[in-house]
Amino acid sequence: MSKSIKIETIPVETRILNENDRLAAENRAWFGSQGIFVVNLISSPGSGKTTLLVETLKALQGKLKCAIIEGDQQTDLDARRIAETGFPVRQVNTGQACHLDAAMVRKEVSELAVAGLDLLFIENVGNLICPAEFDLGENVKVVLMSVTEGEEKPLKYPLIFHLSTAAVITKIDLIPHLKFDLALAEKNIHQVNPKAVILRTSAYTGEGLQGWLDWLAARKAQPPL
Amino acid sequence: MSKSIKIETIPVETRILNENDRLAAENRAWFGSQGIFVVNLISSPGSGKTTLLVETLKALQGKLKCAIIEGDQQTDLDARRIAETGFPVRQVNTGQACHLDAAMVRKEVSELAVAGLDLLFIENVGNLICPAEFDLGENVKVVLMSVTEGEEKPLKYPLIFHLSTAAVITKIDLIPHLKFDLALAEKNIHQVNPKAVILRTSAYTGEGLQGWLDWLAARKAQPPL
Repeated sequence: MSKSIKIETIPVETRILNENDRLAAENRAWFGSQGIFVVNLISSPGSGKTTLLVETLKALQGKLKCAIIEGDQQTDLDARRIAETGFPVRQVNTGQACHLDAAMVRKEVSELAVAGLDLLFIENVGNLICPAEFDLGENVKVVLMSVTEGEEKPLKYPLIFHLSTAAVITKIDLIPHLKFDLALAEKNIHQVNPKAVILRTSAYTGEGLQGWLDWLAARKAQPPL
Repeated sequence: MSKSIKIETIPVETRILNENDRLAAENRAWFGSQGIFVVNLISSPGSGKTTLLVETLKALQGKLKCAIIEGDQQTDLDARRIAETGFPVRQVNTGQACHLDAAMVRKEVSELAVAGLDLLFIENVGNLICPAEFDLGENVKVVLMSVTEGEEKPLKYPLIFHLSTAAVITKIDLIPHLKFDLALAEKNIHQVNPKAVILRTSAYTGEGLQGWLDWLAARKAQPPL
């Protein structure tokens, strides 16, 4: 990106973020010691995080031991959808808060049966901005954007695209009904984050789901550098 | 809503919000004294705020004197789109900040030619959560949700739906290609805010735009109670 990302904080925000980073580092060390690979899913509301997660969990049944932490301001609607897959799930209602933080994750993990767990998915609160600033101790952040959101989201909300290991473009089955330039969207993602792996999916038709699952398995197997 | 909305704040947040409320009240009094009707548009990223705004401004050309304040974390892409309508526009780049506040609006208004202005549109940063807490001094908040976001957004992000005078359901032309229950979405909006006026629009086909314009004109003409 030609323009650097300007990070402005006031002291109290700095203190909150420092404390969060400390807890997140502890979470990460603990997850590592248990062999748990942790994925933090972040997107706007309605980009399809829960739907992708449900399809992912269905595909992983009998193969990997998974658990899920669901973040929403209100309701347990998502946790109920996830619970139907049979995997353990914890719902966090953040109330007014606009993101999950490392302390919330730690609390929920202590309530989950994590012995022998392979994969922990954390579905963040639907918000393309605030969750980017809060490390949860995950191995990878994955940002989702749906084709209905337009091509320019990576440029307008660069931090989360900059920090994510992979960007999943969802709802690609809708492209024929939209004015959406997929190549431009991908160019914009790479402008903000040249290393981002881009995956195209449709939970509706199943297109691209195998590619996403393959990436997930490969990334999980990859040793940390 | 059966469950009340839980508002949790820490003291520093309270102070920031109190100061914002004071500035917003001053903004509101000043807008009132100038006969300027102010609309604060709030939605997730990619729900179609800018597109609705462009179509609205085209329809108002030669009828009403409008100005626009555009909020985004980064880029002036939206302001450039708006500028093509010929109306004056100011872009605010919030950097890391996830919402506009009353001080930002005041600063931008001082840069706009507001003499004889009828309507000021403020397009907030794409975020369904944080902008809800920051009064800008507007007359009405309008929340947008696109049909691709699913029916349950009003329940999961209730505050902004609770505070909005109108809820615009956008991209209704896509309904035939989705599993989307419009009646359920509207029921969910009214569960959170029984008084909300619901408007259905498609900027792509033009459907519902006249209804939105009529509502805007009627609301502008309505004396404050």
